[in-house]
Amino acid sequence: MTHDMEIISVGNELLIGKVLNTNAQWLSKRATTLGISVKRITVLPDNVDETAAAIREALTRKPQFILTTGGLGPTFDDKTLESIAKALKRKLVVNREALRMVREKYLAYAERTGSPNIELTGPQTKMATIPEDAAPIRNPIGTAPAVRVDLEGVVLIALPGVPREMEAIFEETVEPLLKKISHDRVFVEESLYVDGIMESVLAPLIDEAMHDNPEIYIKSHPKSEENKPHIEIHFSATTTTRREGREKLRKAITQLSALIVKNKGKIVLKEHCDLFSQNTV
Amino acid sequence: MTHDMEIISVGNELLIGKVLNTNAQWLSKRATTLGISVKRITVLPDNVDETAAAIREALTRKPQFILTTGGLGPTFDDKTLESIAKALKRKLVVNREALRMVREKYLAYAERTGSPNIELTGPQTKMATIPEDAAPIRNPIGTAPAVRVDLEGVVLIALPGVPREMEAIFEETVEPLLKKISHDRVFVEESLYVDGIMESVLAPLIDEAMHDNPEIYIKSHPKSEENKPHIEIHFSATTTTRREGREKLRKAITQLSALIVKNKGKIVLKEHCDLFSQNTV
Repeated sequence: MTHDMEIISVGNELLIGKVLNTNAQWLSKRATTLGISVKRITVLPDNVDETAAAIREALTRKPQFILTTGGLGPTFDDKTLESIAKALKRKLVVNREALRMVREKYLAYAERTGSPNIELTGPQTKMATIPEDAAPIRNPIGTAPAVRVDLEGVVLIALPGVPREMEAIFEETVEPLLKKISHDRVFVEESLYVDGIMESVLAPLIDEAMHDNPEIYIKSHPKSEENKPHIEIHFSATTTTRREGREKLRKAITQLSALIVKNKGKIVLKEHCDLFSQNTV
Repeated sequence: MTHDMEIISVGNELLIGKVLNTNAQWLSKRATTLGISVKRITVLPDNVDETAAAIREALTRKPQFILTTGGLGPTFDDKTLESIAKALKRKLVVNREALRMVREKYLAYAERTGSPNIELTGPQTKMATIPEDAAPIRNPIGTAPAVRVDLEGVVLIALPGVPREMEAIFEETVEPLLKKISHDRVFVEESLYVDGIMESVLAPLIDEAMHDNPEIYIKSHPKSEENKPHIEIHFSATTTTRREGREKLRKAITQLSALIVKNKGKIVLKEHCDLFSQNTV
């Protein structure tokens, strides 16, 4: 059984090119490794209508998981929980458990800075204001809790945008959940590097290798083409055991390597050393 | 008048976390600098139905530009042009001009490698097979041409996924087009770095500064919060001249700096040196 995920990244900083979306890559890699298939990543501005619309669209596609990143903080432009509430037509309510989490962090700060205020302010309470029937998730590093909403067939989890916080919550709470579900699947991958063959000459050789190795996905990534073609060929598969996956990868790599050498390409190590010359294979 | 853009990135490598989506960031930054507002980035697998659906969805939102990256090459999984044709209900046809571009590159390769084949193969012809009534765009670096489709109110441009090729085509062909349209707008930005103040304490100060500087967008980016809060505050605006933008940024930064210091925060240089101490401002 396949397990699908969509990732929704919220934040103007991602759309003005200020910040590289490393969160989406990090989550994709972790989820893929656990045998989960990430089907779509959507990057949205700090805007309730647009984020709510994108969440509704994602829900219609019925992925098993939707992870959002960003927009959980105390400032006016942190609107992800409001967007989720709007998408689900739920009220936003102050959650008692979330409030306890936020208060704990704030009291430590007030004590450190000698602040006389021990009442939570509006922006602080905002971080504990989450959609009705949602559950806060502990943030071991920052203040804003993550939030989990269980819907029919879809688990929606809102993670913060600060990478260290997002990663810590993922590892503490989300990863164990994904592992439990996808325990029977493992993702394996390997790359082959090829010089001196044009991608269009390589294309039918890949077709042939994929035909003979139907479980292996083979994709070419040209690194530079002018004058000296250099191509990474990426082999991947999702199988039930790592050992089985590795064997299948190995078979496909061996076959395609031979085809490439027959067509005057050279297999090189990543570091550009020759692994096989045309004479030895 | 605002000018909107959506970016659609196609490629399994982006969804398994193998490749960081630097293309989308590069394009966002370039477009933003030209006064264009990027509204959404969507990352999709090498799948015709999913990509065609996402293109149709983007078209309903009526951005002025849709840029796609990836999926223009010769291999079986390069499916972006097929996806565009499907989304637009157009036929795919071999384009004479595109074929000339591909042949020119291939003949240079055949000569270099001493290949006796001078007829184009299926995978090579594929790169010149584009939606009906679309125009190929010269690729100064690689083989696959980019493709432009003019629709009612929307210009759709399909760029290759290899960063060097994508960037070269953008600079040669897309940037001049964007410049012509958005000549009256310029994006300005600046950052302030703050230590020792919690984001939730900062939030109402940002509200106040934004209220008094309605053209400036102010967003806080907490870098680490536990024990020692360190926050980047990013100021940005789209104005008609750079000079005017800079002045408006400066006014907002001065006001917010004073508010932060009054609340026991410290303004620091990016390199963590103190710029103003609490005593001097």
